[in-house]
Amino acid sequence: MNKINYENLNYDIKIKIYHDQKDFGPGVAKIMELIRETGTLSEAYRAMEMSSSKAWKIIKKAEKDLGIKLIDTVTGGAGGGKSTLTKEGEDFLDRYISFSNELENIAKELFNKHFSCDIINKR
Amino acid sequence: MNKINYENLNYDIKIKIYHDQKDFGPGVAKIMELIRETGTLSEAYRAMEMSSSKAWKIIKKAEKDLGIKLIDTVTGGAGGGKSTLTKEGEDFLDRYISFSNELENIAKELFNKHFSCDIINKR
Repeated sequence: MNKINYENLNYDIKIKIYHDQKDFGPGVAKIMELIRETGTLSEAYRAMEMSSSKAWKIIKKAEKDLGIKLIDTVTGGAGGGKSTLTKEGEDFLDRYISFSNELENIAKELFNKHFSCDIINKR
Repeated sequence: MNKINYENLNYDIKIKIYHDQKDFGPGVAKIMELIRETGTLSEAYRAMEMSSSKAWKIIKKAEKDLGIKLIDTVTGGAGGGKSTLTKEGEDFLDRYISFSNELENIAKELFNKHFSCDIINKR
Protein backbone atom coordinates (compact mmCIF):
# COMPACT_ATOMS: atom_id res chain seq x y z
CA MET A 1 0.00 0.00 0.00
CA ASN A 2 1.95 2.99 -1.22
CA LYS A 3 0.68 5.37 -3.84
CA ILE A 4 -3.01 5.68 -4.50
CA ASN A 5 -4.28 4.73 -7.93
CA TYR A 6 -6.28 7.80 -8.85
CA GLU A 7 -7.04 6.45 -12.30
CA ASN A 8 -9.89 4.11 -11.37
CA LEU A 9 -11.28 6.16 -8.55
CA ASN A 10 -15.06 6.69 -8.39
CA TYR A 11 -17.37 8.90 -6.38
CA ASP A 12 -20.86 8.44 -5.06
CA ILE A 13 -23.22 11.14 -3.86
CA LYS A 14 -26.25 10.34 -1.74
CA ILE A 15 -28.78 13.14 -1.36
CA LYS A 16 -31.43 13.19 1.34
CA ILE A 17 -34.19 15.75 1.82
CA TYR A 18 -35.85 15.89 5.23
CA HIS A 19 -37.42 17.77 8.09
CA ASP A 20 -36.14 15.86 11.11
CA GLN A 21 -35.20 12.34 10.08
CA LYS A 22 -33.14 11.62 6.96
CA ASP A 23 -35.69 9.24 5.48
CA PHE A 24 -36.19 10.48 1.92
CA GLY A 25 -33.23 9.53 -0.26
CA PRO A 26 -32.27 7.61 -3.41
CA GLY A 27 -34.12 4.44 -2.32
CA VAL A 28 -37.58 5.99 -1.94
CA ALA A 29 -36.99 8.16 -5.01
CA LYS A 30 -36.18 5.06 -7.07
CA ILE A 31 -39.32 3.25 -5.84
CA MET A 32 -41.39 6.30 -6.80
CA GLU A 33 -39.84 6.50 -10.25
CA LEU A 34 -40.61 2.82 -10.82
CA ILE A 35 -44.19 3.27 -9.62
CA ARG A 36 -44.55 6.15 -12.08
CA GLU A 37 -43.28 3.86 -14.87
CA THR A 38 -45.05 0.64 -13.99
CA GLY A 39 -48.13 1.69 -12.02
CA THR A 40 -47.58 -0.87 -9.30
CA LEU A 41 -45.54 -1.00 -6.14
CA SER A 42 -44.85 -4.71 -6.54
CA GLU A 43 -43.08 -4.20 -9.89
CA ALA A 44 -41.09 -1.41 -8.26
CA TYR A 45 -39.79 -3.33 -5.28
CA ARG A 46 -39.13 -6.44 -7.34
CA ALA A 47 -37.03 -4.40 -9.78
CA MET A 48 -35.06 -3.14 -6.77
CA GLU A 49 -34.74 -6.63 -5.28
CA MET A 50 -36.40 -5.36 -2.13
CA SER A 51 -39.08 -7.02 -0.01
CA SER A 52 -42.58 -5.59 0.06
CA SER A 53 -42.33 -4.89 3.78
CA LYS A 54 -39.00 -3.08 3.41
CA ALA A 55 -40.38 -0.97 0.54
CA TRP A 56 -43.46 0.00 2.58
CA LYS A 57 -41.36 0.72 5.63
CA ILE A 58 -39.06 3.21 3.90
CA ILE A 59 -41.99 4.87 2.08
CA LYS A 60 -43.97 5.28 5.32
CA LYS A 61 -40.96 6.69 7.16
CA ALA A 62 -40.34 9.24 4.40
CA GLU A 63 -44.03 10.22 4.31
CA LYS A 64 -44.02 10.69 8.06
CA ASP A 65 -40.95 12.90 8.05
CA LEU A 66 -42.05 15.01 5.08
CA GLY A 67 -45.63 15.22 6.34
CA ILE A 68 -47.19 14.32 2.98
CA LYS A 69 -48.58 11.21 1.36
CA LEU A 70 -46.29 10.22 -1.51
CA ILE A 71 -48.10 7.18 -2.88
CA ASP A 72 -51.75 6.20 -3.36
CA THR A 73 -52.49 2.50 -3.46
CA VAL A 74 -55.65 0.68 -4.44
CA THR A 75 -55.39 -2.92 -3.25
CA GLY A 76 -57.09 -5.92 -4.87
CA GLY A 77 -59.39 -5.62 -7.91
CA ALA A 78 -59.30 -7.64 -11.10
CA GLY A 79 -55.70 -6.88 -12.07
CA GLY A 80 -54.24 -6.84 -8.56
CA GLY A 81 -53.11 -3.75 -6.62
CA LYS A 82 -52.35 -0.48 -8.34
CA SER A 83 -50.16 2.34 -7.11
CA THR A 84 -49.80 5.93 -8.26
CA LEU A 85 -47.91 8.93 -6.98
CA THR A 86 -49.98 11.58 -5.25
CA LYS A 87 -49.90 15.11 -6.69
CA GLU A 88 -47.58 16.20 -3.85
CA GLY A 89 -45.48 13.09 -4.38
CA GLU A 90 -45.08 13.85 -8.10
CA ASP A 91 -44.08 17.41 -7.35
CA PHE A 92 -41.62 16.43 -4.63
CA LEU A 93 -40.04 13.68 -6.74
CA ASP A 94 -39.61 16.05 -9.69
CA ARG A 95 -37.82 18.56 -7.49
CA TYR A 96 -35.59 15.84 -6.02
CA ILE A 97 -34.66 14.56 -9.49
CA SER A 98 -33.90 18.05 -10.87
CA PHE A 99 -31.83 18.92 -7.81
CA SER A 100 -29.96 15.59 -7.95
CA ASN A 101 -29.28 15.73 -11.69
CA GLU A 102 -27.97 19.26 -11.57
CA LEU A 103 -25.76 18.49 -8.60
CA GLU A 104 -24.46 15.25 -10.18
CA ASN A 105 -23.40 17.13 -13.31
CA ILE A 106 -21.45 19.64 -11.28
CA ALA A 107 -20.00 16.89 -9.06
CA LYS A 108 -18.53 15.24 -12.14
CA GLU A 109 -16.61 18.39 -13.05
CA LEU A 110 -15.53 19.00 -9.47
CA PHE A 111 -14.40 15.40 -9.04
CA ASN A 112 -12.20 15.70 -12.13
CA LYS A 113 -10.83 18.97 -10.80
CA HIS A 114 -9.89 17.60 -7.39
CA PHE A 115 -9.03 13.98 -8.17
CA SER A 116 -7.83 13.87 -11.78
CA CYS A 117 -4.59 12.02 -12.59
CA ASP A 118 -3.29 14.87 -14.72
CA ILE A 119 -3.31 17.31 -11.85
CA ILE A 120 -1.82 14.77 -9.49
CA ASN A 121 0.96 13.69 -11.84
CA LYS A 122 2.02 17.31 -12.39
CA ARG A 123 2.74 17.77 -8.70
CA MET B 1 -50.86 14.90 5.62
CA ASN B 2 -51.64 17.31 2.85
CA LYS B 3 -49.31 20.02 1.69
CA ILE B 4 -45.61 19.75 2.32
CA ASN B 5 -44.00 22.36 4.52
CA TYR B 6 -41.10 23.47 2.34
CA GLU B 7 -40.04 26.10 4.84
CA ASN B 8 -38.17 23.88 7.27
CA LEU B 9 -36.88 21.43 4.75
CA ASN B 10 -33.21 20.40 4.94
CA TYR B 11 -30.84 18.51 2.72
CA ASP B 12 -27.94 16.21 3.41
CA ILE B 13 -25.23 15.15 1.00
CA LYS B 14 -23.00 12.17 1.68
CA ILE B 15 -19.94 11.86 -0.54
CA LYS B 16 -17.97 8.65 -0.91
CA ILE B 17 -14.75 8.13 -2.90
CA TYR B 18 -13.83 4.57 -3.77
CA HIS B 19 -12.40 1.97 -6.11
CA ASP B 20 -14.74 -0.98 -5.56
CA GLN B 21 -16.35 -0.68 -2.14
CA LYS B 22 -17.88 2.57 -0.89
CA ASP B 23 -15.82 2.66 2.28
CA PHE B 24 -14.32 6.15 2.36
CA GLY B 25 -16.94 8.72 3.35
CA PRO B 26 -17.75 11.39 5.93
CA GLY B 27 -17.05 9.08 8.89
CA VAL B 28 -13.45 8.18 8.02
CA ALA B 29 -12.81 11.76 6.85
CA LYS B 30 -13.99 13.08 10.24
CA ILE B 31 -11.78 10.64 12.15
CA MET B 32 -8.82 11.76 10.03
CA GLU B 33 -9.54 15.43 10.63
CA LEU B 34 -9.71 14.81 14.37
CA ILE B 35 -6.43 12.84 14.29
CA ARG B 36 -4.82 15.77 12.48
CA GLU B 37 -6.10 18.11 15.20
CA THR B 38 -5.47 15.99 18.28
CA GLY B 39 -2.66 13.61 17.30
CA THR B 40 -4.41 10.55 18.71
CA LEU B 41 -6.99 8.13 17.42
CA SER B 42 -8.57 7.74 20.86
CA GLU B 43 -9.43 11.46 21.06
CA ALA B 44 -10.89 11.17 17.58
CA TYR B 45 -13.22 8.28 18.16
CA ARG B 46 -14.28 9.56 21.57
CA ALA B 47 -15.22 12.90 20.02
CA MET B 48 -17.32 10.96 17.52
CA GLU B 49 -18.86 8.75 20.23
CA MET B 50 -17.56 5.71 18.37
CA SER B 51 -15.90 2.61 19.77
CA SER B 52 -12.22 2.00 19.12
CA SER B 53 -13.01 -1.21 17.26
CA LYS B 54 -15.59 0.48 15.03
CA ALA B 55 -13.16 3.33 14.24
CA TRP B 56 -10.39 0.88 13.31
CA LYS B 57 -12.77 -1.21 11.27
CA ILE B 58 -13.93 1.66 9.05
CA ILE B 59 -10.37 2.99 8.66
CA LYS B 60 -9.03 -0.43 7.64
CA LYS B 61 -11.85 -0.98 5.16
CA ALA B 62 -11.21 2.41 3.53
CA GLU B 63 -7.45 1.76 3.40
CA LYS B 64 -8.06 -1.60 1.77
CA ASP B 65 -10.37 -0.19 -0.88
CA LEU B 66 -8.19 2.82 -1.69
CA GLY B 67 -5.01 0.76 -1.56
CA ILE B 68 -3.11 3.22 0.63
CA LYS B 69 -2.31 3.55 4.30
CA LEU B 70 -4.20 6.56 5.69
CA ILE B 71 -3.02 6.57 9.30
CA ASP B 72 0.26 5.80 11.08
CA THR B 73 -0.02 4.73 14.69
CA VAL B 74 2.72 4.33 17.30
CA THR B 75 1.29 2.36 20.21
CA GLY B 76 2.42 2.66 23.81
CA GLY B 77 5.31 4.93 24.89
CA ALA B 78 5.38 7.45 27.73
CA GLY B 79 2.31 9.46 26.70
CA GLY B 80 0.24 6.57 25.31
CA GLY B 81 -0.47 5.86 21.62
CA LYS B 82 0.01 8.53 18.99
CA SER B 83 -1.56 8.68 15.53
CA THR B 84 -0.70 10.78 12.50
CA LEU B 85 -1.94 10.87 8.94
CA THR B 86 0.39 9.40 6.35
CA LYS B 87 1.57 11.66 3.52
CA GLU B 88 -0.88 9.94 1.15
CA GLY B 89 -3.63 10.18 3.78
CA GLU B 90 -3.05 13.95 4.17
CA ASP B 91 -3.19 14.42 0.43
CA PHE B 92 -6.30 12.31 -0.01
CA LEU B 93 -8.13 13.99 2.89
CA ASP B 94 -7.30 17.44 1.53
CA ARG B 95 -8.76 16.52 -1.84
CA TYR B 96 -11.87 15.07 -0.22
CA ILE B 97 -12.41 18.20 1.88
CA SER B 98 -11.91 20.58 -1.06
CA PHE B 99 -14.25 18.53 -3.26
CA SER B 100 -16.88 18.30 -0.50
CA ASN B 101 -16.74 21.97 0.43
CA GLU B 102 -17.04 23.14 -3.15
CA LEU B 103 -19.93 20.77 -3.81
CA GLU B 104 -21.71 21.75 -0.57
CA ASN B 105 -21.57 25.42 -1.52
CA ILE B 106 -23.14 24.71 -4.89
CA ALA B 107 -25.68 22.35 -3.32
CA LYS B 108 -26.90 25.17 -1.11
CA GLU B 109 -27.68 27.33 -4.13
CA LEU B 110 -29.27 24.46 -6.04
CA PHE B 111 -31.38 23.43 -3.06
CA ASN B 112 -32.75 26.96 -2.79
CA LYS B 113 -33.41 26.96 -6.51
CA HIS B 114 -35.36 23.68 -6.50
CA PHE B 115 -36.98 23.70 -3.07
CA SER B 116 -37.41 27.36 -2.07
CA CYS B 117 -40.78 28.49 -0.72
CA ASP B 118 -40.81 31.56 -2.98
CA ILE B 119 -40.72 29.52 -6.14
CA ILE B 120 -43.28 27.06 -4.81
CA ASN B 121 -45.73 29.72 -3.65
CA LYS B 122 -45.63 31.42 -7.04
CA ARG B 123 -46.89 28.27 -8.75
